[in-house]
Amino acid sequence: VSATPDTAAPQPDSAYSPTGRTTLRRHRERARYDRDLVHAILDEALVAHVGFTSEHGPIVLPMVHARLGDDLYFHGARANALLGALKDGVPACATVTIVDGLVLARSAFHHSMNFRCVTIFGVATEVTDPEEVRRASTALVDHLVPGRGDLVRAPDDGEVRRTLFVRMPIDEVSAKVRTGGPVDEEADLALDVWAGHLPLETTAGPPVADVGVSAPWPHASSVDRRRS
Amino acid sequence: VSATPDTAAPQPDSAYSPTGRTTLRRHRERARYDRDLVHAILDEALVAHVGFTSEHGPIVLPMVHARLGDDLYFHGARANALLGALKDGVPACATVTIVDGLVLARSAFHHSMNFRCVTIFGVATEVTDPEEVRRASTALVDHLVPGRGDLVRAPDDGEVRRTLFVRMPIDEVSAKVRTGGPVDEEADLALDVWAGHLPLETTAGPPVADVGVSAPWPHASSVDRRRS
Repeated sequence: VSATPDTAAPQPDSAYSPTGRTTLRRHRERARYDRDLVHAILDEALVAHVGFTSEHGPIVLPMVHARLGDDLYFHGARANALLGALKDGVPACATVTIVDGLVLARSAFHHSMNFRCVTIFGVATEVTDPEEVRRASTALVDHLVPGRGDLVRAPDDGEVRRTLFVRMPIDEVSAKVRTGGPVDEEADLALDVWAGHLPLETTAGPPVADVGVSAPWPHASSVDRRRS
Repeated sequence: VSATPDTAAPQPDSAYSPTGRTTLRRHRERARYDRDLVHAILDEALVAHVGFTSEHGPIVLPMVHARLGDDLYFHGARANALLGALKDGVPACATVTIVDGLVLARSAFHHSMNFRCVTIFGVATEVTDPEEVRRASTALVDHLVPGRGDLVRAPDDGEVRRTLFVRMPIDEVSAKVRTGGPVDEEADLALDVWAGHLPLETTAGPPVADVGVSAPWPHASSVDRRRS
């Protein structure tokens, strides 16, 4: 809970249009609809958490995603229950969250996190056009390591048949961003306790080559997850 | 998609019991019900993605969580729609995912991620006992930085009144774990492309002190997220 004024932030011209579901009711100053920002968060986040309502209730599962323009792609085995439900057109929600830091206040109450998150509501569609399958497959590899999609063997007909690709439009979408240090109560500022924030980032260790690999590591020496 | 035999892994004695919803249908060799492992993943992950079915469809939102024994706690403002729904007893699903690395195969098809994730199905309950509220509040701060809960000002009566704490039992739960390198097709092993895996971890930058803070940084010099 922050003491920042709860007013909407100004939005740039190239922005998504808020709907009832994507209008933040609280901390409206943290809401963002800027297309470039939404795309950058989606591109940097490694996984999306995708939820839908099954016959046994709500299910939330992590999925690798990739963005091309205003579309988000997921893929997996045809036997995958989540993908099957998406293909069948269930309403879904996909959320990606990047934790940028820990906000350490003087009071327990004002502890928080710095984060960037994007929430998309929508209905997905199976990708059937072979050319779009090819583009999505490359994008999903490029999402792990930029440029890698062109280096590896593309899916053959059998692999394509066994894989389900779905496309979810990035349309009903909002981003939410928190940055900076704690917002403490005036009366707590005199407390003798460290307060501030602790930045976090995802870093890559040295690559571990598979048995029998003699080819050199072909990518940037450290994969910089912060591409935004 | 992995070529590993799709058989269930042996489970230790201190394990949660699988149910219909927590029995993996695919990659059963990745399923884990070991209590210690489930707890360690929950304790290390910074946020949970919590989903429920609202009147407008499924919603998935990131929440800070903390575990005490076999209970998971969430908290936030009483006006928070997700927490309000949880308090009202909607069926929910909470998933935490830690991405441990990128699995870079010789073919696009066999790219994957190394990860540890936990999925909990259940119904939450509002925490009303003041002593349990106090324990949960401390645990939620300790989840960010171990030991910090005792250093900061505890919530006063007004803050407690404005905050909703809910408890979700860790009972119907499964973990899923992937480790190691790619599992490529035999025919692809001769391809002249680097393959292997790239370990990822969350690292903390130098702490950024709030204006006016003269107290020294009181925690371990780098907060090690890998407490498991």
